[in-house]
Amino acid sequence: MVAHPRNAELRNRITIVRIVRLSLVVVGQEPEIRAYQVRMEMVEKKFVVTPWEVSGIVDYERLIREFGTQPISGGLAKRLESSLGDTAYLVRREIFFSHRDLNLVLDDYEKGKGFFLYTGRGPSGPMHIGHILQFYFTKWLQDKFHVNVYIQMTDDEKFLEEKRNLSYEETQKWAADNILEVAAVGFDPDKTFILQDTEFVGHAYPLILKIARRVNYSTAKSVFGFTGETNIGFSFYPAIQILPSLFEKKRCLIPSAIDQDPYWRIQRDIAESLGYHKAAAVHSKFMPPLTGMQDKMSSSKPETAIYLNDDEKTVRNKIYRHAFSGGQSSIEEHRKLGGNPDVDVPFQWLYMFFEPDDKRIEEIRAEYRSGRMLTGQMKDVLVEKVTGFLREHRERREKARDHVHLYKKDGALAREMWKHDFAKS
Amino acid sequence: MVAHPRNAELRNRITIVRIVRLSLVVVGQEPEIRAYQVRMEMVEKKFVVTPWEVSGIVDYERLIREFGTQPISGGLAKRLESSLGDTAYLVRREIFFSHRDLNLVLDDYEKGKGFFLYTGRGPSGPMHIGHILQFYFTKWLQDKFHVNVYIQMTDDEKFLEEKRNLSYEETQKWAADNILEVAAVGFDPDKTFILQDTEFVGHAYPLILKIARRVNYSTAKSVFGFTGETNIGFSFYPAIQILPSLFEKKRCLIPSAIDQDPYWRIQRDIAESLGYHKAAAVHSKFMPPLTGMQDKMSSSKPETAIYLNDDEKTVRNKIYRHAFSGGQSSIEEHRKLGGNPDVDVPFQWLYMFFEPDDKRIEEIRAEYRSGRMLTGQMKDVLVEKVTGFLREHRERREKARDHVHLYKKDGALAREMWKHDFAKS
Repeated sequence: MVAHPRNAELRNRITIVRIVRLSLVVVGQEPEIRAYQVRMEMVEKKFVVTPWEVSGIVDYERLIREFGTQPISGGLAKRLESSLGDTAYLVRREIFFSHRDLNLVLDDYEKGKGFFLYTGRGPSGPMHIGHILQFYFTKWLQDKFHVNVYIQMTDDEKFLEEKRNLSYEETQKWAADNILEVAAVGFDPDKTFILQDTEFVGHAYPLILKIARRVNYSTAKSVFGFTGETNIGFSFYPAIQILPSLFEKKRCLIPSAIDQDPYWRIQRDIAESLGYHKAAAVHSKFMPPLTGMQDKMSSSKPETAIYLNDDEKTVRNKIYRHAFSGGQSSIEEHRKLGGNPDVDVPFQWLYMFFEPDDKRIEEIRAEYRSGRMLTGQMKDVLVEKVTGFLREHRERREKARDHVHLYKKDGALAREMWKHDFAKS
Repeated sequence: MVAHPRNAELRNRITIVRIVRLSLVVVGQEPEIRAYQVRMEMVEKKFVVTPWEVSGIVDYERLIREFGTQPISGGLAKRLESSLGDTAYLVRREIFFSHRDLNLVLDDYEKGKGFFLYTGRGPSGPMHIGHILQFYFTKWLQDKFHVNVYIQMTDDEKFLEEKRNLSYEETQKWAADNILEVAAVGFDPDKTFILQDTEFVGHAYPLILKIARRVNYSTAKSVFGFTGETNIGFSFYPAIQILPSLFEKKRCLIPSAIDQDPYWRIQRDIAESLGYHKAAAVHSKFMPPLTGMQDKMSSSKPETAIYLNDDEKTVRNKIYRHAFSGGQSSIEEHRKLGGNPDVDVPFQWLYMFFEPDDKRIEEIRAEYRSGRMLTGQMKDVLVEKVTGFLREHRERREKARDHVHLYKKDGALAREMWKHDFAKS
């Protein structure tokens, strides 16, 4: 299985890198001419990326090396771009930055063998912008490639993850809530199956058993860092997360943030021995929290994230009050020195998702860097985009209430999956 | 949970005791007067009792001490005897020899609170006499106490137990076969639910998750001796075996051979925190293999066991050829020295199950010990009993084909269980 469990464990859990620390330094002594300058200094700092934790400033190139994935670049980037059309900016801007076997997926697609998409959500609370983006990315892939999408709602995992301290009822409530958000994204109801683990595990149990028999405890422990305190449900759970990657005897492409990669490493160890394909993956970067480029949006710190059910006033407030700005401290200084879009979260959000127009985003970048665009104006642009996006998402969500049953039970793909005989998998 | 995992592990796995070794010693020098004498000597020997292995000669008193259970004796034995009526010989003869909380079960029964029974079977192959006895014992308890019985068919466990190397299809075949054997025992179809794990796990998954969240890996490891090589399905499985013990908010009495006790130790650690009762147990002794008082009947050694589908000729052959005898080597010697019923397997089988009449069994013992009854005659008695039992069992099995659906789906209790909302457990 994994060759060097100890190393693998270390690799997944902690990586020490040099990062940029921002600090404000007073450069003038007299109060009236006090000015601030952003000083960048290199310091030793950890960052952590596991399926349950992302902290620090993520060094994506380093992740590619440590996780053993491949960058999306050169000819492969061109192939993907040409398929994506109007959403190709995700490739050009390296939001999709890393992959496993994406080239084989595109080969299979071009040869007419097809492939399928699989992504998921752990329903532990309300969803924010950072959560929903991967579903939009996945929908766009579905739109371009016309393939089946399987979306796993891992309510069992969230119940078993003890530190969350969620009751069973709470996980059920959040599963229903989150499924509606996902339905709002607008997947094809006949090519999309949303499986809620607590409902579907029984039906697929024969295949889950076959997966579980292939994964021994030391492998799972070394990949996920389980300890003796880990409950036996949680250490079994990887078998369930691997399940949908074996729903078809085609190649499975998993669009996800890179923190979920450890699951696919185990999947890739065992899939072929069960008669299936190794999972392919396309990894997207984490959307930074509003409060700065460090860590990821956190449900326990509401100021770091914008929730899908935040109203317009809340969105404005959060962006104006909490969004970390790369601008200067006064209009005069800003006009003179210009802003730094690399650390400006409103700019980064526009770049990563909300402004697909390459020409427009580069105008914004240049305007900001030159000092012609002020921090407040940058935030105005983002507020406009986010409130517009949320308004449309919410409208779709209301309409989606009547479609949830199609994704879960009655659409063509859902019906097929509920009829599928997993004893014969 | 378990206070001293290391000690607990050792306790479960190996116990060193003094046992009796039988050896044949030539006592006459000249060939024509050669005689054999059974010499008994005390030697150091191990025996092992785990849920997956029983070997050596089991010292039941020692097991009671090591497992921390209680002997069934004194007032408690009297109470149980008086309830059992015509099957009280199981208590008098100490076939039911050990228990946990049986006194509380009888208290609950007498107070009208009731209780329920739970037992099970791992369908890894054809069932033999040793397997079916516990089901007859359980049925007799049901007949006397008029209580619900839950019978778990652990086809998932047998698939996950890698050393058995069973395909999924094989576990399904044996599950169907074994369910029919169990149905032949004649449980009350409206008070009995046979749950086949691969069918029922999904329905009960919420409660399984609640159990699993309470059991950490080190506890399970120390109780069952898991290693890093153990697959993650097998280390999760204890949550599933514990499940039926929480099917009702009454006390659960588990009639089983004592090798399954480790599961109930974990159950007793967590049941009350989930709002249920600690499981009670009544432990029966292992029926010895035909070939001698050591180990237990083994499916991999067909001469050690009589299968429920062995025909009369096979039964005769096995008993006459393989049944270990406590008799002397010649009729003359036997008449002179007498036989030893303590090591005579035919006598032990009669004593443990096939001859419930106390007066008759003591006559047989005395006749044999005195030398008046010969080995062949003892075997005749057993052949008669076993073939009669199997004939009746097989007749019941044919009739039971039409009743399986009642135990699994359509009887009153089965219907109730399939309707039960485990999310509210």
